[in-house]
Amino acid sequence: MGATGLVGQELFHVLKKRGFPVGKLRLFASANSAGKVLHDTELEQLRSGCFSGLDVVFFAAGSDVSKRWAPEAVSQGAFVVDNSSAFRMEEGVPLVVPEINAHTMSANTKLIANPNCSTILALVALAPLHEAFGLRQLIASTYQAVSGSGKGGVDALSAEMRAWCDGCTLSTEHYPKPIVLNVIPLVDTLLEDGSSREEWKLRVESQKILQLPDLKVAATCVRVPVMRAHSMALTVSFDKSFSLEEAKDCLQVAAGVCLYEQEAIPTPQDASGVGDCIAGRLRLTDVLPNGLALWVSGDQLLKGAALNAVQIAEKVFL
Amino acid sequence: MGATGLVGQELFHVLKKRGFPVGKLRLFASANSAGKVLHDTELEQLRSGCFSGLDVVFFAAGSDVSKRWAPEAVSQGAFVVDNSSAFRMEEGVPLVVPEINAHTMSANTKLIANPNCSTILALVALAPLHEAFGLRQLIASTYQAVSGSGKGGVDALSAEMRAWCDGCTLSTEHYPKPIVLNVIPLVDTLLEDGSSREEWKLRVESQKILQLPDLKVAATCVRVPVMRAHSMALTVSFDKSFSLEEAKDCLQVAAGVCLYEQEAIPTPQDASGVGDCIAGRLRLTDVLPNGLALWVSGDQLLKGAALNAVQIAEKVFL
Repeated sequence: MGATGLVGQELFHVLKKRGFPVGKLRLFASANSAGKVLHDTELEQLRSGCFSGLDVVFFAAGSDVSKRWAPEAVSQGAFVVDNSSAFRMEEGVPLVVPEINAHTMSANTKLIANPNCSTILALVALAPLHEAFGLRQLIASTYQAVSGSGKGGVDALSAEMRAWCDGCTLSTEHYPKPIVLNVIPLVDTLLEDGSSREEWKLRVESQKILQLPDLKVAATCVRVPVMRAHSMALTVSFDKSFSLEEAKDCLQVAAGVCLYEQEAIPTPQDASGVGDCIAGRLRLTDVLPNGLALWVSGDQLLKGAALNAVQIAEKVFL
Repeated sequence: MGATGLVGQELFHVLKKRGFPVGKLRLFASANSAGKVLHDTELEQLRSGCFSGLDVVFFAAGSDVSKRWAPEAVSQGAFVVDNSSAFRMEEGVPLVVPEINAHTMSANTKLIANPNCSTILALVALAPLHEAFGLRQLIASTYQAVSGSGKGGVDALSAEMRAWCDGCTLSTEHYPKPIVLNVIPLVDTLLEDGSSREEWKLRVESQKILQLPDLKVAATCVRVPVMRAHSMALTVSFDKSFSLEEAKDCLQVAAGVCLYEQEAIPTPQDASGVGDCIAGRLRLTDVLPNGLALWVSGDQLLKGAALNAVQIAEKVFL
């Protein structure tokens, strides 16, 4: 569901590329798109009973759609991977990054929540370090691509880029401020305590996935004029002391991580279209006890969304 | 000196705009530019004895030029404000942000170092909070504009923007990676411990300016595709506890700071051409003891360079 969206499109390609054993593929979309053909398949609209006979349903169409329809898909016998935030913090719903906590899925689990994109990318790099040294504090500043807010974000940046080249200024309405030649320190909406919802997600979802309810997390989430792939500066504190070499060794063998050597600088363009998170710029810091600073870039449409969702389904069906 | 550069041009405009009582203005530039006319003034090349009769000389042409010529300017009786990093960490040379530590200049001081741009912008917002609550730890992630690396940076981003609009990809050689639709987590060169020189500057210059040699600082400095004005996400710990309102009240009355209300999101475009630093997104955090997170955007060619230099000269001459 959400087959025409950015994540929906990636889901199709990831299933194909990884040889997921698809018998029959059905594509669902909004009423606007229903009847059109995508990947030689007619787009269907959701309706009562539509999930009957399906083994797995991926939801990638926003919270409201998932809240309304995911329970029905489950009750019709489907295994559901939900990319929205609808069920992530619900008790009993596993919030899964397969490299980290696949063990939280049981045979009875029928609904799995796919975490927030920034959270996945940060934790793929941090979980192996946590396992080795014990994570205590996490301070994250993000540099998030416009595709994280869907096609509208990509269209807004493209239009503003073209306007600049034509010598005009254009402020599209997709973001509260211009995004071309600018950065906007607000992703999602503001909450009462001054945090944004994205910053809140990064905190509570990290705590849930790592099973560290008391983990201290502070995030500043920022939209930047990048088309694809999120990045983040992470400053972290651990229980145990370690050397820079030990931290590097840990990431060198970590699943889903590609460690860049010191002189190689990971950027979101390097991470675009790549399944692994790219980590680099590792250095020790005395700002926190047993402190480490590092940089992570990762494709938030792949590992941050579609790839992670397919990896969850692989754990169940393969 | 450096009259044709980005900071040199701003110095001219700032002196004019603030009504600095200039008697005779002399403009110095490299051998390439000498003889050309700028602001109705013929550009001169530096040569032995050239500073004779000058009251104040601003250096904005890089470290090597300052190292070679600033001492000569001083010995010829001029007061020198040096925008380069040549003398910043030298004992006995005041490193001055006038709102914070003008008291470190004495009547005998003939050479003042103008701090690193990111450091100035961070400290204009942090110093009043430090005075009220006692700064203990500072974690900074920067979002730095291309004009911070001079005209070459602006030209590189402009060329890459136009290439994108023309449907080509162009990677200029000014930065190690493309800067359009990308972010590059390296500003200045890498040091042996894995930090960049810019990150090192932010740490040691903050310690010197605030006279806190043991202040814990960790920075991640990142170049972003913004033409003008640097931004930074700051996560800080203080000795004393305080409420969010007290922190806001403190910044509301701070010199050189414009506090944005919660719903107003400060961006580098809002800060471009503005003398004050724009601070916003204030929120308490439990990631650090007495923790606060905030966002600062500021024009690094103005308060981060030219304006701060002129304010230093005003303290001495006005």
